[in-house]
Amino acid sequence: MNATLDGGVVRASGDARQRFHDARGYGRASGPDVTLARVEAAHLLYRGDLDSISGMDFRAFFRDSVASEDAFAARFLVYADLRERGFYLAPAREGWPGSDRERGDGEDTAGRDGNASGGGGSDADILVFERGEKPGGPVDHRVRVLGEREELAAAALAGQTLAVVDEESEVSYFACATGGGFDGRTEYDLPAAIDADLLDDRVVCWSPPGDLYESAFYGQPISGRDDADVDALQLSLVEAADLAARGAVELDADEVIERGRAVEGERFDRRLSVYRELRDRGVVPKTGYKFGADFRTYDAVETVAELPHSERLVRVVQPDHRFHPRELALDVRLAGGVRKRMVFALAGDDSNDYLTVDRLTP
Amino acid sequence: MNATLDGGVVRASGDARQRFHDARGYGRASGPDVTLARVEAAHLLYRGDLDSISGMDFRAFFRDSVASEDAFAARFLVYADLRERGFYLAPAREGWPGSDRERGDGEDTAGRDGNASGGGGSDADILVFERGEKPGGPVDHRVRVLGEREELAAAALAGQTLAVVDEESEVSYFACATGGGFDGRTEYDLPAAIDADLLDDRVVCWSPPGDLYESAFYGQPISGRDDADVDALQLSLVEAADLAARGAVELDADEVIERGRAVEGERFDRRLSVYRELRDRGVVPKTGYKFGADFRTYDAVETVAELPHSERLVRVVQPDHRFHPRELALDVRLAGGVRKRMVFALAGDDSNDYLTVDRLTP
Repeated sequence: MNATLDGGVVRASGDARQRFHDARGYGRASGPDVTLARVEAAHLLYRGDLDSISGMDFRAFFRDSVASEDAFAARFLVYADLRERGFYLAPAREGWPGSDRERGDGEDTAGRDGNASGGGGSDADILVFERGEKPGGPVDHRVRVLGEREELAAAALAGQTLAVVDEESEVSYFACATGGGFDGRTEYDLPAAIDADLLDDRVVCWSPPGDLYESAFYGQPISGRDDADVDALQLSLVEAADLAARGAVELDADEVIERGRAVEGERFDRRLSVYRELRDRGVVPKTGYKFGADFRTYDAVETVAELPHSERLVRVVQPDHRFHPRELALDVRLAGGVRKRMVFALAGDDSNDYLTVDRLTP
Repeated sequence: MNATLDGGVVRASGDARQRFHDARGYGRASGPDVTLARVEAAHLLYRGDLDSISGMDFRAFFRDSVASEDAFAARFLVYADLRERGFYLAPAREGWPGSDRERGDGEDTAGRDGNASGGGGSDADILVFERGEKPGGPVDHRVRVLGEREELAAAALAGQTLAVVDEESEVSYFACATGGGFDGRTEYDLPAAIDADLLDDRVVCWSPPGDLYESAFYGQPISGRDDADVDALQLSLVEAADLAARGAVELDADEVIERGRAVEGERFDRRLSVYRELRDRGVVPKTGYKFGADFRTYDAVETVAELPHSERLVRVVQPDHRFHPRELALDVRLAGGVRKRMVFALAGDDSNDYLTVDRLTP
């Protein structure tokens, strides 16, 4: 069967509507015919369901489409990958099934299907419908297609599924959800005004009450393992600044914060802000250094002797942070490998937003 | 027992030489007495083997030492950690056992033990002797102590063991060895002048000989899984630039390189240089995107159908790259989690150097 390229869309007649649209969920019905987005038409050519489009074979049409639409190659790869996995999908494009508004005709100028300048009013490129649902049914994923070299604003990620196409054309999927999913249930009483020294980039508490470590899980004993003759607990500057502000250690909180800024700059304030908020919510943050993150977190600590598995890794970023897909892949992969979820904290001047990113294997 | 602080070192008399030096490997003999570095003396105080130093208890001496020597707290933590693990060790400091030169007396001005301005002519802070060996015996690790916020020049790492002290005073160890350890044994013949298109940031080869993918493991079939009617192989720009230079695809190599630079800047040249060198050595590099690296590598590919586990992850950096310990932890941890070794390629103008970093659990 042959089809015709017409102003950025492809039209097919005859039994095309029945074969492609009604039976297999491609395109949109236009009376007795079917109108296909380029990515859909290319997929039909690629499978041999169409023989040519305005005289072009797959190669010629693919080249023409790469020259006509932004990021066509990456979108085609994701479209084909999701189709192969058995989903019904549609370009997120005005007039196509599942997009917010439907138009009466299929005319559309060339351009990236369904991006902000197209239909639907979202940043999605492809809509994936729930398993077993036809196009127009409930949307399971709003997929944004991204080359591995394109950066993406952290603030724009919530509610999206990213499909990152790497340089060898493999696709990785990431689901980005608002919120950190914390369920803080740790309870403890803090002591008052413990004797402490600010030394370099850490704090040492001398003869602290055992509960500060054992139950509230602040600090790290200067050594837990041998027959030390010294009873001391080391605190990170973030822990010390938090405890000083709560009156639990006898240090000037501002002085600790100044030291923190001296050793790590403004980043210290952002980390402290997230640390405090998590502690306020009954979550215990400890350093995530070994995992390359700012914190690992525990929802519920009863005692350090029976410490549960930490549930999350938290990386603190600026609210205007832009993710490089490679970093995102690294963080999320590592978190998955140690059975934790990856949370990004967008630490603002007044409040913090959290974003959970999971790797999907659709 | 009490000891005396004297010009940056600590002296103890009586049976101290026998008890601390001869029996347990602390300090250096000075006639009938023993001379201790601050870090050694602090450890003896900490264990209760010394009662005071010039009237100072552990707390006072620790504070005094933090004020007198750079990074004392971090070095003390690493010293104590390694001692607890049962090693004999010595500060890498002129006159102390294991350092290159030994001096006649124990005088030394205050300053960071054993750094470049101290003895031994190396950047190590602590020497760890082989298990079962006394100080002065064969050195197993030359340990450089690093706070988690200190950056370190990549070029300075070879042959060192890094001890990174995180903000909560936990220590992680990394062994840094020269060379990538590649053992390339992949053999194949390349075709000549395959028909290909440069499309956006990738290349598509049309109807390529099967061996190009199946045996040489270049590219990725445009789709391997369903009943595609198209026979095409996608190449990354790095693969395409390499194949074009070898005459295997009908594209102008310079044009491909220009496209690579347009999408990723100078980094493209560095990655291509490493890619080519590895291919020349019989190693197969494929994208490491899913692991946050530039490449994953296979020493010996017979066929893609029986692909072995890839042995290494390679991250390409500039020769003057400075590592942030957090990145290093993330990369090495991830590589370990997927049973690969982490290799950094320092890509220079004329040649590339390789550095393998492993996490140690002493």
